[in-house]
Amino acid sequence: MATHKILLLPGDGIGPEVAAEVSKVLAWFTRAGIAQFETETDLVGGAAIDAHGVPLSEAAMDRAKAADAVLFGAVGGPKWAGVGYAKRPEAGLLRLRKDLGLFANLRPAICYPALAEASALKRELVEGLDIVIVRELTGGVYFGEPKEIVTLEDGQKRAVDTQVYTTGEIERIAAVAFDLARKRRNKVASAEKHNVMKTGVLWKETVTRLHAEQYADVGLEHVLADNCAMQLVRNPKQYDVLVTDNLFGDILSDVAAMLTGSLGMLPSASLGAVENGTRRALYEPVHGSAPDIAGQNLANPIAMIGSLAMALRYSFGLLEAADQLESAITRTLASGTRTRDIAGPGTNAVGTTEMGDAIVREL
Amino acid sequence: MATHKILLLPGDGIGPEVAAEVSKVLAWFTRAGIAQFETETDLVGGAAIDAHGVPLSEAAMDRAKAADAVLFGAVGGPKWAGVGYAKRPEAGLLRLRKDLGLFANLRPAICYPALAEASALKRELVEGLDIVIVRELTGGVYFGEPKEIVTLEDGQKRAVDTQVYTTGEIERIAAVAFDLARKRRNKVASAEKHNVMKTGVLWKETVTRLHAEQYADVGLEHVLADNCAMQLVRNPKQYDVLVTDNLFGDILSDVAAMLTGSLGMLPSASLGAVENGTRRALYEPVHGSAPDIAGQNLANPIAMIGSLAMALRYSFGLLEAADQLESAITRTLASGTRTRDIAGPGTNAVGTTEMGDAIVREL
Ligand SMILES: CC(C)[C@H](C(=O)O)[C@@H](O)C(=O)O
Ligand SMILES: CC(C)[C@H](C(=O)O)[C@@H](O)C(=O)O
Repeated sequence: MATHKILLLPGDGIGPEVAAEVSKVLAWFTRAGIAQFETETDLVGGAAIDAHGVPLSEAAMDRAKAADAVLFGAVGGPKWAGVGYAKRPEAGLLRLRKDLGLFANLRPAICYPALAEASALKRELVEGLDIVIVRELTGGVYFGEPKEIVTLEDGQKRAVDTQVYTTGEIERIAAVAFDLARKRRNKVASAEKHNVMKTGVLWKETVTRLHAEQYADVGLEHVLADNCAMQLVRNPKQYDVLVTDNLFGDILSDVAAMLTGSLGMLPSASLGAVENGTRRALYEPVHGSAPDIAGQNLANPIAMIGSLAMALRYSFGLLEAADQLESAITRTLASGTRTRDIAGPGTNAVGTTEMGDAIVREL
Repeated sequence: MATHKILLLPGDGIGPEVAAEVSKVLAWFTRAGIAQFETETDLVGGAAIDAHGVPLSEAAMDRAKAADAVLFGAVGGPKWAGVGYAKRPEAGLLRLRKDLGLFANLRPAICYPALAEASALKRELVEGLDIVIVRELTGGVYFGEPKEIVTLEDGQKRAVDTQVYTTGEIERIAAVAFDLARKRRNKVASAEKHNVMKTGVLWKETVTRLHAEQYADVGLEHVLADNCAMQLVRNPKQYDVLVTDNLFGDILSDVAAMLTGSLGMLPSASLGAVENGTRRALYEPVHGSAPDIAGQNLANPIAMIGSLAMALRYSFGLLEAADQLESAITRTLASGTRTRDIAGPGTNAVGTTEMGDAIVREL
């Protein structure tokens, strides 16, 4: 039986709590003789700053490169508000994305039927919602240079960020979206601001050309990012796969996630290019470090456990195990087990560890 | 009686239809002896491209500079999709904003009680919603240089947009937000991405300093733009005044507008600096040119008529007339008159002209 190398980076806030539940699930798969994992754990974000003075040590970066998949919790919190830009907790995550070449971020926004009531939107607008945001993750304004603050002669400061995209960067993320759409409802919407941004002009032009040349069988629609944000609120079910750049993807995927009422349940995958039949990958919950509820056994571990299910499927080729884990999650929810974030008024809520235990029991 | 100089720029799509209703209202105020207007009309956007080959003629720009206020409809549509970046319809609007120095865009998001049902959100989340997004309008990625597409040696293209902010630009828009908050519920939320963008770092630092020095009596909260988009969906009533940059403002204000269920009802004001007691200003509906319903007498003219009410108040000092117009709108709605966009199922909808006539009747 092949051994799958996992680097677990719990991070900050509720990260360690939800990561602990993932470890339980990994242990179960090993005990059951279904798969074998070699799991290393390291620090990232604020935890790494406290220990090493940097948000990701070189040793952790090397381990990430050597792993078949990285499982990432969450980073950041008020404790590290003053550490300075280069050393902030988020820099650890951004370095992982960039140095592992994880250009494709897949963020499903699924409204679980049992939770449709938890959405801010009217039930009929979100019930059955199942869209995937494909976000470009290693380009755009996140990494473009110059990126600086300079002091001018009159004492004023001037800050600059640079959004850059090349044809090749746009093509490869669009291809991910089109390929994914073919396995789903065969529709892609591409969001940019070509009416204001040159990167938007190139984005639209490149997606249009790639579509005509290689994906003419897939439905394609172009939508302005501001209008897309509106449409996500007005009628999210009109979309299937939504492809967009790094910054718009950051915002639009958060809107989409929040719509589902299932923020604590949504996993995500960040994938690199396929090389020699494998690809680098990092899996993380869509939610953040939630410092306000950290350490209180209140966090919902489902997004993190669902991220493991994605790793089983996309990185380890363990399709059956992935299905098995996802249906254990579904059965646990169907049995009425709820953490606080998804418990309706008057329902009993369980804690993080109880939810993890319940899922293992269902396995 | 002073004569107020207005430049009316109806633009494209439904722009001319809603602008026509504003002309009716202006005529009523003149007939009633309440105010005197000198109204010029000119072309902008696609209409100007068709007539002059550019989205805003020099003559129209000069008229805008000479006017006390510009009333703007909407621009753009599929007809001009191929005209090229420099000449696209939106360039006319962007030039007006930049050359008139309209750095402060005020976008109220109000949920009219009668329309709470029209929101995609659950009634209790939006009923009574009254927030204002203060969007920086002449800086950021909209205007920063370089902004270009270059062809690389290998035939690939590389597109660049540049987001730039100076201390002074941030201070003046933050001051608008704090001043406005003092007349409202005294709370400002400032949205940026300081965890990823240097402009976000300078934004947060500058807002924090200005607050400490001059507005310590106003409540201030910093929120990441992606989280802010989420919070707008989760619980929009937590906000009072929300200040943010040009690009985030574009998206967040569209989300906020859509939440209200009243998109066709929301006016906006774009204001310049006060010089010699006056300030340049442009008023426009938040909605766009809606080419799909143009020319069919279906558009809701209330956002445009409400924009005139803002002009009466902020540019002409006609506070009573502004109140009068706004209460005429409220009474018209209370009487059950509805255009299609806000008509509930089973309700009779009136057209654009009928809604305009009804408001004039209420005056
Ligand atoms: C933590 C932060 C740097 C990150 C981002 O902006 O990409 C987060 O918001 C996300 O969406 O993964
Ligand atoms: C028409 C377009 C250039 C404009 C913008 O992006 O600012 C519009 O979306 C707006 O919000 O006023």
